Amino acid sequence: MKNLILLRHGQSEWNLSNRFTGWTDVELTPKGREEAAEAGRRLLAAGILPDYCFTSYLRRAIHTLETALDAMNLDWLPVVKDWHLNERHYGALQGLDKAETAKKYGDEQVHIWRRSYDVEPPALTPDDERYPGNDPRYASLTPDELPLTESLASTIERVRPCWEELIVPALRLYDNVIVAAHGNSLRALVMMLKHMTPDEIVREEIPTGTPRILTLDSRLQVTDDRYI
Amino acid sequence: MKNLILLRHGQSEWNLSNRFTGWTDVELTPKGREEAAEAGRRLLAAGILPDYCFTSYLRRAIHTLETALDAMNLDWLPVVKDWHLNERHYGALQGLDKAETAKKYGDEQVHIWRRSYDVEPPALTPDDERYPGNDPRYASLTPDELPLTESLASTIERVRPCWEELIVPALRLYDNVIVAAHGNSLRALVMMLKHMTPDEIVREEIPTGTPRILTLDSRLQVTDDRYI
Repeated sequence: MKNLILLRHGQSEWNLSNRFTGWTDVELTPKGREEAAEAGRRLLAAGILPDYCFTSYLRRAIHTLETALDAMNLDWLPVVKDWHLNERHYGALQGLDKAETAKKYGDEQVHIWRRSYDVEPPALTPDDERYPGNDPRYASLTPDELPLTESLASTIERVRPCWEELIVPALRLYDNVIVAAHGNSLRALVMMLKHMTPDEIVREEIPTGTPRILTLDSRLQVTDDRYI
Repeated sequence: MKNLILLRHGQSEWNLSNRFTGWTDVELTPKGREEAAEAGRRLLAAGILPDYCFTSYLRRAIHTLETALDAMNLDWLPVVKDWHLNERHYGALQGLDKAETAKKYGDEQVHIWRRSYDVEPPALTPDDERYPGNDPRYASLTPDELPLTESLASTIERVRPCWEELIVPALRLYDNVIVAAHGNSLRALVMMLKHMTPDEIVREEIPTGTPRILTLDSRLQVTDDRYI
């Protein structure tokens, strides 16, 4: 029996200011830090202590993991950071106020961008300052890997190699593996593990700062799925 | 040209309460956090940005690194945590008040324990709650690797495999490598790199929270050594 612990980052500065975030590297709020510490305390109380850790390249997820580990006295655990676990890239919507975007494009269009499976928001152009190719942390990525925008479907395809090449091997070696990441990159893991359809995954809401425990058998099939 | 950046953790809770710390996993004080952030700002101002990071298994060093990286917007960098970079193990002195220890054993004896090259403080016994074998983070170590006490000389011998097997290979791949650690584990690196004698290394004082830049040529010989 293995446990895959999924932890969505707590409240960030742009959750608070209601802007499309995506790959923008915003910080947790004090409330988000407290959510992360509480997640660590819950794991400790449940006796589900991670042995190995994954997170994204974005500080709101990295700090969520670091804060939760500190609450468990597990700061010393190995942590792998992988850009494949980043939030869905929101394209040219990144940085825009959600209410203003709804006024400009209409509620229905924004709803489609946010809640459909395979519709992408408007793309960035590579000369946009928000283009990930302009950020040193993505310097080693090929142009094909650098997103201009992403649907949930393309986010899931992007997360897949991290699952197959990094998380699955870690689950073979360790009993409890934690992934501290984002709403949509965690959805990707849930969809793959639970063999969900597109209709099912778009309705799947993962709450922030609440550890989700997927218990897996030796064939990595889910035998239990619960929040603590 | 390569840069090895050495960063000694800032003020810890037991620096403040004047106790022998060693492998005890005490936290940074707010002042220690601020020292770490200032170290990050100085590296940023100097344009010496790490590409790859090492730290110990102790949270005062881990948090120093994480805080400095955050100040540089480099939270996403790979970090290797290695117990070989821990502070010198202070044996049965760990947790004792330094002034009371001096009263009990005499100033001269305490000075010898603190400042000699190869004299070990009194050893722990494996049934002591402070024995590292009782701590889950050291569960994978062999009894030979688990210290009961250490001199500076034995600390240096313990750091050596981390230097040879992990840091040197990283310096072959990356231009700027940072090691956030402790007074005595950093002394070990300085002694090896600068071919110092025991008399020289015991007089070497590395200030807290101040980045030390060792510039190395392609044969990893030191061509420059400065604090920023």
